[in-house]
Amino acid sequence: MFDKVHEECGVFGIYSRETKNVASDAYYALFALQHRGQESCGIVVNDCGVMSVHKDVGLVNDVFTKDALSSLGLGQIAVGHVRYGTTGYGNRRNSQPLVINHVKGSMALAHNGNLTNAAALRRALELEGSIFHTTSDTEVIAYTITKNRLNTGSIEEAVSRSMDTLEGAYSIVLMSPKKLIGARDPLGFRPLSIGKRGDDYVFASETCALDSVGAAFVRDVEPGEIVVIDSNGLRSITEHCSNRKKALCVFEYIYFARPDSVIEGTCVHEARRRAGSLLALEHHVNADVVIGVPDSGLDAALGYAQQSGIPYGVGFIKNKYIGRTFIQPDQKDREDRVRIKLNVVPSVIKGKRVVMIDDSIVRGTTSARIVKLLRDAGAKEIHMRSSAPPFLYPCYFGTDIDSQENLIACKHSVDEIAKLIGVDSLGYLSVSDLPKLVNPGCAGTCDACFTGSYPVDVSGVSAKSKFDQKIKASGKED
Amino acid sequence: MFDKVHEECGVFGIYSRETKNVASDAYYALFALQHRGQESCGIVVNDCGVMSVHKDVGLVNDVFTKDALSSLGLGQIAVGHVRYGTTGYGNRRNSQPLVINHVKGSMALAHNGNLTNAAALRRALELEGSIFHTTSDTEVIAYTITKNRLNTGSIEEAVSRSMDTLEGAYSIVLMSPKKLIGARDPLGFRPLSIGKRGDDYVFASETCALDSVGAAFVRDVEPGEIVVIDSNGLRSITEHCSNRKKALCVFEYIYFARPDSVIEGTCVHEARRRAGSLLALEHHVNADVVIGVPDSGLDAALGYAQQSGIPYGVGFIKNKYIGRTFIQPDQKDREDRVRIKLNVVPSVIKGKRVVMIDDSIVRGTTSARIVKLLRDAGAKEIHMRSSAPPFLYPCYFGTDIDSQENLIACKHSVDEIAKLIGVDSLGYLSVSDLPKLVNPGCAGTCDACFTGSYPVDVSGVSAKSKFDQKIKASGKED
Amino acid sequence: MFDKVHEECGVFGIYSRETKNVASDAYYALFALQHRGQESCGIVVNDCGVMSVHKDVGLVNDVFTKDALSSLGLGQIAVGHVRYGTTGYGNRRNSQPLVINHVKGSMALAHNGNLTNAAALRRALELEGSIFHTTSDTEVIAYTITKNRLNTGSIEEAVSRSMDTLEGAYSIVLMSPKKLIGARDPLGFRPLSIGKRGDDYVFASETCALDSVGAAFVRDVEPGEIVVIDSNGLRSITEHCSNRKKALCVFEYIYFARPDSVIEGTCVHEARRRAGSLLALEHHVNADVVIGVPDSGLDAALGYAQQSGIPYGVGFIKNKYIGRTFIQPDQKDREDRVRIKLNVVPSVIKGKRVVMIDDSIVRGTTSARIVKLLRDAGAKEIHMRSSAPPFLYPCYFGTDIDSQENLIACKHSVDEIAKLIGVDSLGYLSVSDLPKLVNPGCAGTCDACFTGSYPVDVSGVSAKSKFDQKIKASGKED
Amino acid sequence: MFDKVHEECGVFGIYSRETKNVASDAYYALFALQHRGQESCGIVVNDCGVMSVHKDVGLVNDVFTKDALSSLGLGQIAVGHVRYGTTGYGNRRNSQPLVINHVKGSMALAHNGNLTNAAALRRALELEGSIFHTTSDTEVIAYTITKNRLNTGSIEEAVSRSMDTLEGAYSIVLMSPKKLIGARDPLGFRPLSIGKRGDDYVFASETCALDSVGAAFVRDVEPGEIVVIDSNGLRSITEHCSNRKKALCVFEYIYFARPDSVIEGTCVHEARRRAGSLLALEHHVNADVVIGVPDSGLDAALGYAQQSGIPYGVGFIKNKYIGRTFIQPDQKDREDRVRIKLNVVPSVIKGKRVVMIDDSIVRGTTSARIVKLLRDAGAKEIHMRSSAPPFLYPCYFGTDIDSQENLIACKHSVDEIAKLIGVDSLGYLSVSDLPKLVNPGCAGTCDACFTGSYPVDVSGVSAKSKFDQKIKASGKED
Repeated sequence: MFDKVHEECGVFGIYSRETKNVASDAYYALFALQHRGQESCGIVVNDCGVMSVHKDVGLVNDVFTKDALSSLGLGQIAVGHVRYGTTGYGNRRNSQPLVINHVKGSMALAHNGNLTNAAALRRALELEGSIFHTTSDTEVIAYTITKNRLNTGSIEEAVSRSMDTLEGAYSIVLMSPKKLIGARDPLGFRPLSIGKRGDDYVFASETCALDSVGAAFVRDVEPGEIVVIDSNGLRSITEHCSNRKKALCVFEYIYFARPDSVIEGTCVHEARRRAGSLLALEHHVNADVVIGVPDSGLDAALGYAQQSGIPYGVGFIKNKYIGRTFIQPDQKDREDRVRIKLNVVPSVIKGKRVVMIDDSIVRGTTSARIVKLLRDAGAKEIHMRSSAPPFLYPCYFGTDIDSQENLIACKHSVDEIAKLIGVDSLGYLSVSDLPKLVNPGCAGTCDACFTGSYPVDVSGVSAKSKFDQKIKASGKED
Repeated sequence: MFDKVHEECGVFGIYSRETKNVASDAYYALFALQHRGQESCGIVVNDCGVMSVHKDVGLVNDVFTKDALSSLGLGQIAVGHVRYGTTGYGNRRNSQPLVINHVKGSMALAHNGNLTNAAALRRALELEGSIFHTTSDTEVIAYTITKNRLNTGSIEEAVSRSMDTLEGAYSIVLMSPKKLIGARDPLGFRPLSIGKRGDDYVFASETCALDSVGAAFVRDVEPGEIVVIDSNGLRSITEHCSNRKKALCVFEYIYFARPDSVIEGTCVHEARRRAGSLLALEHHVNADVVIGVPDSGLDAALGYAQQSGIPYGVGFIKNKYIGRTFIQPDQKDREDRVRIKLNVVPSVIKGKRVVMIDDSIVRGTTSARIVKLLRDAGAKEIHMRSSAPPFLYPCYFGTDIDSQENLIACKHSVDEIAKLIGVDSLGYLSVSDLPKLVNPGCAGTCDACFTGSYPVDVSGVSAKSKFDQKIKASGKED
Repeated sequence: MFDKVHEECGVFGIYSRETKNVASDAYYALFALQHRGQESCGIVVNDCGVMSVHKDVGLVNDVFTKDALSSLGLGQIAVGHVRYGTTGYGNRRNSQPLVINHVKGSMALAHNGNLTNAAALRRALELEGSIFHTTSDTEVIAYTITKNRLNTGSIEEAVSRSMDTLEGAYSIVLMSPKKLIGARDPLGFRPLSIGKRGDDYVFASETCALDSVGAAFVRDVEPGEIVVIDSNGLRSITEHCSNRKKALCVFEYIYFARPDSVIEGTCVHEARRRAGSLLALEHHVNADVVIGVPDSGLDAALGYAQQSGIPYGVGFIKNKYIGRTFIQPDQKDREDRVRIKLNVVPSVIKGKRVVMIDDSIVRGTTSARIVKLLRDAGAKEIHMRSSAPPFLYPCYFGTDIDSQENLIACKHSVDEIAKLIGVDSLGYLSVSDLPKLVNPGCAGTCDACFTGSYPVDVSGVSAKSKFDQKIKASGKED
Repeated sequence: MFDKVHEECGVFGIYSRETKNVASDAYYALFALQHRGQESCGIVVNDCGVMSVHKDVGLVNDVFTKDALSSLGLGQIAVGHVRYGTTGYGNRRNSQPLVINHVKGSMALAHNGNLTNAAALRRALELEGSIFHTTSDTEVIAYTITKNRLNTGSIEEAVSRSMDTLEGAYSIVLMSPKKLIGARDPLGFRPLSIGKRGDDYVFASETCALDSVGAAFVRDVEPGEIVVIDSNGLRSITEHCSNRKKALCVFEYIYFARPDSVIEGTCVHEARRRAGSLLALEHHVNADVVIGVPDSGLDAALGYAQQSGIPYGVGFIKNKYIGRTFIQPDQKDREDRVRIKLNVVPSVIKGKRVVMIDDSIVRGTTSARIVKLLRDAGAKEIHMRSSAPPFLYPCYFGTDIDSQENLIACKHSVDEIAKLIGVDSLGYLSVSDLPKLVNPGCAGTCDACFTGSYPVDVSGVSAKSKFDQKIKASGKED
């Protein structure tokens, strides 16, 4: 809610045999995916090969006015994207989907993830004379596919060839004039699911977006798989699939995804309840009430309560009217801004021993302020439980856990953190419990941000390359 | 969430001995009160008698841009207001607070409630030559006070004289050049509380707004009481107070107020949990899970679960990004719009016998759609419980329960409604349980919309007079 | 263009026997009248007595979006208004037309002018208990008419009774549920003309607005006349008309009105050309080119050139893209802002002896900057001619010539002004030439701002009362 | 004003040795160039190699809010652009300047003109794997320069190599991390001038933009010249300059440019006055008044009047408040929309024999409507004169004279056109008079749209390639 880890993106695509309002479908789907990225969003509609695009900095609700949405017209295929980032004028050009024109026609591309070899690929492309309009690795993917398209017989073949060189995390949805394609990196860092609505096919980062357009869940795109939708229906290319242990981001379950989504067979809500149960088993405490920090701590709190037998309570009310343009309090009041967004329900807290569950602790500052709210409301004891283990290592696969300097767990012991936050006890979910969050049969998760065990070689990757930035010139005489 | 009963307003006032950013305090307070009215809002700042106003149609977040807020400047006193209604250009002039100039200076007035004799008072004033800029009864109150001010020695005396003629529901906050005044009708239909922050005094419709500005709760304004704040501190005028049974709107507890607010000594969250417990006692059923319809059904669901022993579950995820400008689905999809705003958590529902709690049932159409979502998700049985009794009578005291035609309970029996909604069983809270929602010692509530027992004579009041409307001309030759 | 005298308003009204898009007519008419007021604007549409209003701070182009215009719907009568003033949030409530509800129905009122006894009338009304929402004298007029309506048989009779007490300048257009009325004060300070389009009748401050809606000019409303339009057609009430010398603002011809308008039989463009001719006769000089300062100096420059035989030239290009939101240059560049709005055509000026005509000189600062532009462009000599005499006295009849402190002519002789502005010679139009601007048969003009000969007693009027202002409280204890 | 020929663009660049508010300079300059393009605009600021960009669809006044302008920050170099086109969401990505990142750093590019071999160059680049984000030839130029940069020692060398392959019309301003470069195609189709302000250097399409930032005119960039500004000052590369006859667009003088600009030594205002004089000599007629159609017909009308001795008159008043969002009249009134934008000054026209000068005639429809206005105002005779010869051929060099179907002169004789427009006589400027518009010593103009004598081979160029468009896919199976 406040100082949280952020996902980079959510992607969506729809293919229909008929000409219809696919823009409207994309619009509803982006609402369902908005939690995955609130910086910018966009939709591209493909009408017989002619692509109309609208994208901008802002929430779906703000970017897509009635005029903007209707300007996209009808079509057969559409691709949509929501993107995380801090707001700013300069970020408009990094908004997605990326639309480009190349020798075989137009292409629109939406990407969730992060390439670990983006810098090297970009450098090589630039040395061949390529120009880059954006600073995102999505453009690197577009170039790579386009270059491969020159020597291959189809767009899907070009995607397959590109997967030989692309490294890291990528769940992409792209459309050529006549096809919609979904593909996932061989380790499956980011989710991507397939839905069907009548004869229409849909791709979405999460199943909640399938629900929002009335599509039934078919299956997930497999790690390494390329799924092609065209007038012949659905076709799968599996040459990059393997039996290797997979690396689905475990934090998707803990925080990123929406509770009603089902990823790789596990309902996110259930995963969070399990996290709460596991916390209750490992970090038991005698208390009067278990509360969650809204919204993502609520499910785990319920699990903790059910496991421990301590009553579940509604401890906080979150103000749902605070928007992006909320005017910040004066400097002196800034410390109290938590108070404006979050209020305590006094009767639940006063005089009680409270177990407070949050999904994770990043810098710890917000936790400290929330704890103060509880103390002011008369909590007798406060026991904090985090349904994620401590963040200790940077992530190179599409989230902004980038700097160890900002991670409180890198600099302090659990006891010190408890003191800093002001709680009577603090307990984190154990790394060894992470596999228990997902259903048996899960092909494997990535927990590198907790363990440092990266599923791919990241020795040459600088944390800086993970996010877009203004690129400082380095030319000699220019 | 969808077809709900609406409150008319929320009011706020602050008095400081120093010149400071009272506009900023009002801004935060209106965020906390936004749930009481989303049509329009406004703030008036009083700087040594010079009043600056900004108000418009829209949410606080939209109306108060940085420029708009800073245009109000610093001051010693401020009054704020949020108002319910459907959006529209014509409604701007009915937005509050109302600022007027009269013989003794300027006055700003914010009102929550509804006068039952507004039409008669207005007619009498017009016959004396008064002109009306708005169609709201707030202007009637302003006129009445101003007329009385001519023959009285102070603004508070004028307010007191006006209370001799004003009938119905009114919680008002007004400021004269040097005073801030809060007053409540003798039966106390609408809440109004007093807070203190250092030497500053605050009035607000709900205590959650006190919290948002860091003020401590002092007490409620008593029914019939006039509380005057000026440089001498707080002073109370009690000549309209009595020992009569009071008539605080019981639906404030069930739906209108924020759960973290405390009204007349009862925490709203607790009242809702009690409603859930009482429902469990009266309408028990064997089931696997108890879920609430977000947001206002959640507390009662928790109470039902705790009383019944059936596990509490998170059955729905509400999309928090749907804003006012959300573009409605095509006509054919309109029935499915619930699906875009509300998603089911499948693992919680599938194959389960579900108890679903909502705060009330108005027309029943939304309930039917929500029930269909649960059926589609595989619910085996659905038992709906409403934490309000059936709506049967119009309200004349500041809500929009105005037409019996729209109330499903006026036309159908409980069994019929259950069938129409599509549930296996349906249970309403009993009217006889209503007194149990509030703490002992409560001075009395109004439940006329459920019982028809109006606490004041409403025989001459037409339902039409309850809400603002374009006034059709009736003059003979003009 | 820069430091100019400002008119307060422009008014418009239309009456049709059929229900049609009268809002659209008012919209086009307000575009034609926009030069008379750029602060705020508004339109009220009357559909069988139900009045819909939209008004706001801003230009017609900004205030009337497609949605706003269509929200007014169809109707039979409409009234529109443009208003001058500095922009600001607080000014919205002073925007017109004023819509009020009184005992005989609704009334909408648009006013151009200024009452000289507004303060006294307001005070008397307040002492009877009247409340004022605005600080404009338009509300005083509305009250006066409404009070009189109580004891009269029709709205036009009420207007007539009100004219017994209203003093000063007023050209008003008002509509009751069934009638459209235009009225002008007995001295006719401000223009008001009548047009006809098929069976429709139109009132407008200037004839250019008649043209914009395709209406043919019928005649001016006579000073003191009340013209009533209803289902019986046009009817005139002349009891306030007299043979007294009239007082039409002569500066309407020199600067306020649009050149293509015809006021009291004289085309404004011709009046300006005559001013130029008269200047040439009285202030001859040997020169190479005559140029006008755009836009209002161009006509007089043409007259000067034609009379003197010196060639007319296009000396300046005005940037037509500078809008209201133009971001001002940095403080240090502010002196050069004229350069951004106005450019010299170098070939016309370089090495030439230039006669430069402007409509008037207020503070002289802008003139000095424009002269500097010409010097920088290589003008050999610069001879400035002003088609208005020197401003020496405040105006109490609806313009903002309010403070003698700001008038350069009050503090300096013509020779001193020439030096301050930096010209080689300076000549003003003589006061004795003013009557020559209008056609013979004109009933009389007001030139009080040049001569101090006020056509009505203004001894008790303070300059401060002329414009709206925040009203400081004066009550004793409130 | 209504159905006019449109220019594609205006460009601007500034170089300073100090870090300052170069964005503000670009902002003022774009206001001065706004007449060259009203679809979109943009500014890029270079601060030590880091480039910040803001660009969007809309007028300078709308796109550059205070926040947007200040988001650009301070810098040493800036490039700006205004662009013509019809408004639309899809056009945002074609807005300029184009900012790209390549192997030697970032580059920002602003272009005015049109390449005749853009399609061929683009095809070749695509076949090498290049991807295109836009449909404009500006991206083709960027690619060509970037490719050449790989094998050259400096950006200016890369520009020079690129000019070996670029064909057609291009005046470009580009910046690398450390340099500002202006270049013009060898025939000099479009203007580009150099200015100096202290140590700062400036490039602009027209000299009026130099004036707006207080820069003194230095000289024009020569056709074929590359002018490089860096810390060493100004340097010229002339290898593409030649003695060949040049091809400056003669319609820049007649219509496109601002009258106060000086292009290749000739003041635009003077060129237009000469056009009027030449029309008077060739197409004399006995008449009472000469009027111009605002704004661009005014100068020629003055020339006609001076040559013929017939008095110059102000025949029209143009409404300057009609903005881009002006709501079009109802279908039935659309023919009268001219009336809303343009009013006749009746006293100048009534009963007169009128000579009406316009800059050109494209489709003739607007001329016919304007003529009708004059007839309605009582003109006795109307003699139209066009200061451009008849348009007969498409332009391939940066204007939208693209389709012979829309050109009235392609389908009708002069007499027929006179009849269609409704005038008593019609006269066009002779092609043979065109050279007389410019000062002696002019290196040559392009009049291909009048004569069909194209200065470069255009046999392979389709008119369609001249303007940006949605690109239809042509790939085989994709």
